[in-house]
Parts: sequence; C-alpha cells; structure tokens
Amino acid sequence: MSAPVPTRPHGLWLDDLSVGHTITSGTVELNAAAIVEFASQYDPQPFHLDADAARGTFFDGVVASGWHTAALTMRLLADAFPLATGIVGAGVDLTWPSAAVAGDVLHLEGAIETITFSRSRPDRATVVLSHQTLNQHGQTRQKTSARLLAWKRPD
Amino acid sequence: MSAPVPTRPHGLWLDDLSVGHTITSGTVELNAAAIVEFASQYDPQPFHLDADAARGTFFDGVVASGWHTAALTMRLLADAFPLATGIVGAGVDLTWPSAAVAGDVLHLEGAIETITFSRSRPDRATVVLSHQTLNQHGQTRQKTSARLLAWKRPD
Repeated sequence: MSAPVPTRPHGLWLDDLSVGHTITSGTVELNAAAIVEFASQYDPQPFHLDADAARGTFFDGVVASGWHTAALTMRLLADAFPLATGIVGAGVDLTWPSAAVAGDVLHLEGAIETITFSRSRPDRATVVLSHQTLNQHGQTRQKTSARLLAWKRPD
Repeated sequence: MSAPVPTRPHGLWLDDLSVGHTITSGTVELNAAAIVEFASQYDPQPFHLDADAARGTFFDGVVASGWHTAALTMRLLADAFPLATGIVGAGVDLTWPSAAVAGDVLHLEGAIETITFSRSRPDRATVVLSHQTLNQHGQTRQKTSARLLAWKRPD
C-alpha cells in the first residue's frame, strides 16, 4: 500500500511533523443568522433558534450548536494543518467548556501530542492533535483531541 | 438552582431514565448535493467535493465529511432522545469506522451506559449515552459516546 494521492501537493507529510509542532489558525466569525441556519438543519432546539423560546432554558439565550462549533473548527483546521493527504480523522474526543455565541470570532490553537506509527504499515501513523477553539476574548468554546491519519512522503 | 425551563414539556426527565434505556431513531437520507453543500461550508477537501479530484486519495471517491455525519446524528438524536430540558452536551467521544456516502439512509441505535448524579447539585446528573449511526446495510458510520446533562422532574 502506497500513500494516498495528495490533496495538497505542497502540504505536510509525516517527515515534516514532530511532537510539539504547533498550529494557529485564521479566524471565522459566527453570526446570528448562521447559528439559526445551522441549527434549523441539524440541531433544531429552542436554545439554538429563538431568543424568546430560549429564555430560562439551560443556556438562557441563543447559543450555537456545539456541532456548529465543531464544523467551524474543522474549517479552520483544514487550512491551519495542511496535511498533504488531507485531514483524515479516525476519531475525536471533544468537550464544549462554553457555548459559542453570535459575535464570536473563533480561531484555533493546538499542538501535536503524539505520533504513533503503524506496526504493520510503517509508512503511516496516527497523529494526535490537541487543539482549542477560542473566541476573541480567549474563552474556550471547544477542546478537541483529534486522531488523524498521516503518511510519509512517497519516495 | 432549579431545573432549566423545559424545551420539551412532555419530554424525559432523569426520573424517566435508567441504565440500559435504549433509543432507536428515525432515518435521514444523505444525498450527493448535501455532501457537497456541507463540505463547501465546513470541510472543503477534495474527497468531499469532487469525484475526479477524489480519485486516488484516501477515500478514493466522494464521501461525507465526518462532521456532516455528526451533524445528522445530532438531528436524529434530538428526536430519538427527547430530554425535557433538551440535548445539552458536555462532551463526546466519537469514531468514524467508515465514511458515509451518498445514498446512505442513516439511523441511530443506542443505550444509556451510566447515570452519574452531581454531588453538589443532586437534582442533576450526567447521562452517558452510547449510540451508533448506521446505514441501511448495517454499516457503522459513527460511534458516539455522549455526555449529556439531565435534571430531575421539578416538584
């Protein structure tokens, strides 16, 4: 099995990565219309849709679906961590210490925690990248530990 | 602190739940246009966008973003597990054993694994719900362990 065809020919291969490698992303702004649009499709609960209906609920106002925060995190990650073979996730652990709200300008900060080579296929490894999704005030909206597949640069 | 205002007045409170409580959701069909639409906004990688560009990449064709599968899973869960106070997630662990593709008709099957009451606030608990997102052929597209907040029925 050789490495997959690159999705970013000038991107990063395992040869370019090491534990402690840090990432910082660009930013994306979350607005009220986007919160409602996402929630209408994927998470139609009152506290994501309507200020009146959200009053007194757990969030006591409209907040973004955590899955919206997760999707925006993916968008930021795709550019912040340009693996040559793409961001191929085997799995993730994530928490939402606080909910994102309209007006949040989100960015990521993270680092590679471990790189574990496959025993049977030594040209590939699982890279664990931990990253936080922060707003402009430094509030953490998501903590993610992602298990990503990566390959050595082909000969 | 009393329980939040219900988002589903006839929904489930902690009093209604026990370990082993099972859920089965309705279904949602994933089509090719939706895969591209989601990916264009949140995960613009070639293997989610374009069949030609996807050839030879890890997925060797167009597959749904794992975050799209996660978002559809949330949509199914909101109805399949109608907690009175809404689905409020503290965090999740998830894996994607295989990628969802156009034509998949997805549904959830799951069960409550644990219910852990808060020591300081005995009217609330963290409910761990494990669930799988399966297609019509029984292929598992996502395995999720979700930590959800739930409350006792108010007096």
